[in-house]
Amino acid sequence: MQSTYITKGRPSTHGDSYQLNTTTMIRHAARTYPEQEIVYRTADGGWDRYTYGESYLRICQAANALRRLGVGPGDVVGILDWNSRRHFELYWAIPGLAAVMLQMNLRLAPEDLGYVTDHSEASWILVDETLLPIAEKLAPLVPQVKGWIVMTDRPLSQISTTLTNVHHFEDLLRAEDKHIDWPMVDETSAYSACYTTGTTGRPKGIYYSHRGIYLHTLAMDSVIGMSSDDTAMLITPMFHGQCWGLPQAAVQAMAKVVLPGRYVAEDTSVLVDAMIEEKVTVANGAPAIFTPMLEYIRSLDNKPDFSRARLLSGATEPSLSLMRGFYDLTGADIIHAYGATETTPLVTVNKGLKPSLREVLSDEQTWNRKRCQGLMVSGVDFRLVDGAGKDVPFDGISQGEVLLRGPWIIEKYHKLDDDGDRFLDGYWRSGDVGTIDQHGYLKLTDRLKDVIKSGGEWISSIDMENALIAHPRIRDAAVVGIEHPKWQERPVALLVTDDGTELPLDEIHEVLKPNFAKWQLPDTALFLETLPRTSVGKLDKKSIRATYKDIYKDI
Amino acid sequence: MQSTYITKGRPSTHGDSYQLNTTTMIRHAARTYPEQEIVYRTADGGWDRYTYGESYLRICQAANALRRLGVGPGDVVGILDWNSRRHFELYWAIPGLAAVMLQMNLRLAPEDLGYVTDHSEASWILVDETLLPIAEKLAPLVPQVKGWIVMTDRPLSQISTTLTNVHHFEDLLRAEDKHIDWPMVDETSAYSACYTTGTTGRPKGIYYSHRGIYLHTLAMDSVIGMSSDDTAMLITPMFHGQCWGLPQAAVQAMAKVVLPGRYVAEDTSVLVDAMIEEKVTVANGAPAIFTPMLEYIRSLDNKPDFSRARLLSGATEPSLSLMRGFYDLTGADIIHAYGATETTPLVTVNKGLKPSLREVLSDEQTWNRKRCQGLMVSGVDFRLVDGAGKDVPFDGISQGEVLLRGPWIIEKYHKLDDDGDRFLDGYWRSGDVGTIDQHGYLKLTDRLKDVIKSGGEWISSIDMENALIAHPRIRDAAVVGIEHPKWQERPVALLVTDDGTELPLDEIHEVLKPNFAKWQLPDTALFLETLPRTSVGKLDKKSIRATYKDIYKDI
Repeated sequence: MQSTYITKGRPSTHGDSYQLNTTTMIRHAARTYPEQEIVYRTADGGWDRYTYGESYLRICQAANALRRLGVGPGDVVGILDWNSRRHFELYWAIPGLAAVMLQMNLRLAPEDLGYVTDHSEASWILVDETLLPIAEKLAPLVPQVKGWIVMTDRPLSQISTTLTNVHHFEDLLRAEDKHIDWPMVDETSAYSACYTTGTTGRPKGIYYSHRGIYLHTLAMDSVIGMSSDDTAMLITPMFHGQCWGLPQAAVQAMAKVVLPGRYVAEDTSVLVDAMIEEKVTVANGAPAIFTPMLEYIRSLDNKPDFSRARLLSGATEPSLSLMRGFYDLTGADIIHAYGATETTPLVTVNKGLKPSLREVLSDEQTWNRKRCQGLMVSGVDFRLVDGAGKDVPFDGISQGEVLLRGPWIIEKYHKLDDDGDRFLDGYWRSGDVGTIDQHGYLKLTDRLKDVIKSGGEWISSIDMENALIAHPRIRDAAVVGIEHPKWQERPVALLVTDDGTELPLDEIHEVLKPNFAKWQLPDTALFLETLPRTSVGKLDKKSIRATYKDIYKDI
Repeated sequence: MQSTYITKGRPSTHGDSYQLNTTTMIRHAARTYPEQEIVYRTADGGWDRYTYGESYLRICQAANALRRLGVGPGDVVGILDWNSRRHFELYWAIPGLAAVMLQMNLRLAPEDLGYVTDHSEASWILVDETLLPIAEKLAPLVPQVKGWIVMTDRPLSQISTTLTNVHHFEDLLRAEDKHIDWPMVDETSAYSACYTTGTTGRPKGIYYSHRGIYLHTLAMDSVIGMSSDDTAMLITPMFHGQCWGLPQAAVQAMAKVVLPGRYVAEDTSVLVDAMIEEKVTVANGAPAIFTPMLEYIRSLDNKPDFSRARLLSGATEPSLSLMRGFYDLTGADIIHAYGATETTPLVTVNKGLKPSLREVLSDEQTWNRKRCQGLMVSGVDFRLVDGAGKDVPFDGISQGEVLLRGPWIIEKYHKLDDDGDRFLDGYWRSGDVGTIDQHGYLKLTDRLKDVIKSGGEWISSIDMENALIAHPRIRDAAVVGIEHPKWQERPVALLVTDDGTELPLDEIHEVLKPNFAKWQLPDTALFLETLPRTSVGKLDKKSIRATYKDIYKDI
């Protein structure tokens, strides 16, 4: 353990007058690799390219333009845009002024987007021409916004909108000097703001610091091994969680950047084509995007060679068939990474086997291990704790909630005083339950709210569901913890059988016994026609628990 | 430009309660890669090995032992040791207590070592058994030292020494717990102290910060591309400039570490043999060490395969024959890196050609470019300024003094108030003069004190010397700037000819004209039998300038 109290030693001769901020990153790249390319998708669906050097001049112009509009330290500026060249420029221009870049999730309902804009006190919003309909729905809800800046290749006269006080991004830039004296932004200042989209309550504000972004960037470059020989394509939306830090990591490594603009999950062929054309070696995304990309690759007569490519996959655990499919067809390595909006997001990365395991594990064991969350990234301090907040050993068996702290891990939510249940001893409570084995690999087993707390021990609901579904007659299964007067909670199994008939409890226990202790077995099994699910298809355990909350009440 | 004034923005939700200190690095490595190996040379010249996990337990014990002796935050603890396992342990144990590790250069004269020990107020000194004679000479000069800790595999009873208050490192460790609650060391606290060994005046103290070391480490890993697949051998002495940051870079990357203990420049075969045996992929050193290593390799019947090896070469510019020799015989890449004790030291690294130059340059141009200092490392801000402190362009022609700032660049010397001439606008003045070309490559041309300042322009003395030596009859040449009433300084050439006869000035001008402007040509040439040189063979320009200072006085 390392204390939470800071101990001062002797003064050093190397101070902190040089702050860790993103301006130093882009400036260094523009000075040292001015010729490096940034390739971007144009409004007509074609591709164009410019250089770090040219981009930096536009970044200076954009910062000068925003400053002329009155944007200064602490002001919040929102962005409604795809993964575009202008979005990339704003990633540096806004924080470079010590202002905060508000990341506006295009998928949010207008009320939620209004709440976020209002809560962050955003004063200006930049909007891509194609997203004007969202801005127009939002405008009436956010009267404090001073004005809108439309980003388009067309002249302002050709833009029709109901927005008022509208500026034209390109016109603003043209009027500005290509040079700026940047402020030395204090490193604990907010760089960007992103709001969580939890299922309960209002979105919660996460204000990333320059310091956290800077250190996250270095960690990411180190763990991926990025250099100027790489080409990074940003697939993850730039409007959420700063695109998982890949734009900054690419610039810091002085890699070539590919910005695919707007693409839709229904047709990801544009991403695969760009990977081939621009020889992409690093990209980030979720299985929901990589899966249709793989389908498209399957349809190609000539399979592309992506053997240098590292595809960072987040959001959910990638399936074995996805990882193997990419590897077998193209040589690309799907790398499972774990994190959350609160963690910037990098927490673990599963780059594959450690040297010490390479000659020990079979091919099947290797692939299975590649599915788990992987090794903690250096710079993130971590604990696994049980329900009483006590540390559990890293033995690959003991489950605990993952606690995290570090420069890019949240320390408090923005303007939220009652967030105490999300923090413990200075660590952020991830709400994820898992194990860490003796090799250091994290494997998540459940969400804390879904884990069943029985007699002081934890039972993974997901493990039990997977075991139950293995029974030939069980088609669907949910296991939830229901309040119990003696044991705190006891597992209840909700099952859907093939033919709608019930199974005796003994037979259910038989299928579980190989993997569960006797005290873990459910005392109750209920048989339903279907299980309640949320709009995105996840088991709705909240509603299940509410429905059956009184089962054990009178025992 | 980026201001020197710090501008605060909006508060972030990611603070700085988690400090950048070296404890988090070693702790993470021990938790995530406990099985990774550290290979070390034993007192009898053999080799042994243990793991990060085992090393960490000894580090905890060492910290507990020092704490029990009264070492706490701000205290200074000196080390007299080779590149040993125990030295490696102390690299983490001492700074982990918020104490300062004093790096004691074994090559210093006892008086200088005494001055350094006294100036830093060191309270304890750890000394390897083989270095007791140095400690015994030092002891009478440093009465404030509370005690000495001898590091040896033998029992204390077998050690004969005139030192008083002597402890035994291994005995101390054995008595301690293998667990410690580390303080959270404030990141601006001093991590280690190293004193410059300038030719003029007393040694000057450089107190590195945890923050600077941490960020230097990340930069180094990023630029070398280090990972757990690497094996790093520490050739540079660990008693100076924290071994150029390689111990920390190796741990942060969780690479295997090789500690060659004591080796002598006269027989570097042990280093080559260890490279072969342990499959070393990264090492650091100076041409003075790499040259005899190459000679030994030439003598081997079977040339080793070092094709994965990156050999970081500092101190002086490596010769073309050294770089080509290593590459042709073993495949190893000698990487020229530039820095100073004040800069931790990484400033530039010449990893080879940027992607944009690879297909443009010929083989000869490529090798020539590999000799220069290379590209600035991200995290270091730099300027080139002329004699008036005005920035000169990065055109590959304009010369300027290299100014540096950044988290691992010195901001002031320890307890030295009159160091104003070493700093300009918050930048450290390196005293090195060079050019930066449009591709970002730094090429040093001279030391500022040796550059000839004539009529507001600079003339590189080294360039002119190299041009003069190309004349078939000139065997040795020195060019110095001598004070001139009209031109500030004018170049004077001191020459040694093959046969001792003089050359007409016209002929000297002829050989210079292809590379120098007319106003740059020396007005005076003097012929000597030999040129004055320092004890290490460098031209003694200070004495030359003193001898001829009045040449132009009465013009």
